[in-house]
Amino acid sequence: MTSAEQPASPRKKVGRRPGSADTRLVVLEAARAEFAARGYEKASMRAIGRAAGVDAALLHHYFGTKDRLFLAALEFPVDPQMVVEQVIAGDRATVGERVAGFVLGLWEQPEVLTRMLALVRVAATTEQVAQLMRGFVQEELVRRVAVELDVERPELRTELMISQIVGLAMARYVIGVEPLASATREELLPLLAPTFQRYLTGE
Amino acid sequence: MTSAEQPASPRKKVGRRPGSADTRLVVLEAARAEFAARGYEKASMRAIGRAAGVDAALLHHYFGTKDRLFLAALEFPVDPQMVVEQVIAGDRATVGERVAGFVLGLWEQPEVLTRMLALVRVAATTEQVAQLMRGFVQEELVRRVAVELDVERPELRTELMISQIVGLAMARYVIGVEPLASATREELLPLLAPTFQRYLTGE
Repeated sequence: MTSAEQPASPRKKVGRRPGSADTRLVVLEAARAEFAARGYEKASMRAIGRAAGVDAALLHHYFGTKDRLFLAALEFPVDPQMVVEQVIAGDRATVGERVAGFVLGLWEQPEVLTRMLALVRVAATTEQVAQLMRGFVQEELVRRVAVELDVERPELRTELMISQIVGLAMARYVIGVEPLASATREELLPLLAPTFQRYLTGE
Repeated sequence: MTSAEQPASPRKKVGRRPGSADTRLVVLEAARAEFAARGYEKASMRAIGRAAGVDAALLHHYFGTKDRLFLAALEFPVDPQMVVEQVIAGDRATVGERVAGFVLGLWEQPEVLTRMLALVRVAATTEQVAQLMRGFVQEELVRRVAVELDVERPELRTELMISQIVGLAMARYVIGVEPLASATREELLPLLAPTFQRYLTGE
């Protein structure tokens, strides 16, 4: 789902060919190493390009900005920018319903669910990954959502929304408690929507 | 915090002495093995006693019922029965506030927090433990809370409350996103209480 996953066809050849499949793998590997070593905030595109033997400008051209490269490197199943544009922005009165519908719908795609649970599991047990997620979530998700909100403590409220989403994934899919695990989207939506609505708007 | 952790002094001696420290360790080890092998619902006190060389009646006398033994064996940091009696039962109009205050207060005890996070981490990565937790949570926590509630789908609503609690622990302590990680109990209580209130009472 990340826009960085399908780079446009290469136009120039300098050093490694950034558009080729094996260069892509080398870049993603270098990115994972750099993110793991320095954390999301301190990782630099320049260092990733250098490690991969790819010119920084070309790296930007084919992988976009740091957040795009991170999403691609961690195979992050959701693009925060897309979430903000398509889910958070828009009619305030129904934002809770949109968030609940989006999240429940997302998990109905097995490959997205699998990838998300893998990330939650690794973050739960590996401090380095937890730290990476923390930086990325704060910088790229919370900040972007918070700026759209017209409430006090928008970051805190955004993170409470995220905490309900993560906990729902844990309870529904990892622990698998019944009846929550088998509840349908239609059953859960009216229970969850007001929670998200209140966190995001205070209503 | 579990009442089963300090057995009364032994009065009889049959087979192993159930009150002695090493018998206690043998019983807890046998309990962990039985729970792991058969899951919470199917594990039997009789089999645990047999494996530990302790008479089933004495096992009951010193460790109480199956749920008590489970709490002791997994060093579960919270006693669901106590939670229901002290937190859920009582004035319906303020139950959300009581749940939020209880949870946030609980985590201010470092040893409880550490143990709880350890359980969440293991459950997140080990299907066997997740399955154990599922059985225990459904049988001993959800059922007991749900019976106190006067709403439709009380089990589902109880599990949504639990999902918010688990997710809060993940976001606040495991991922550690700011400002949530540093928010005080006083800042979080008014944001969380209405969520729990609505899940548990529909208001």
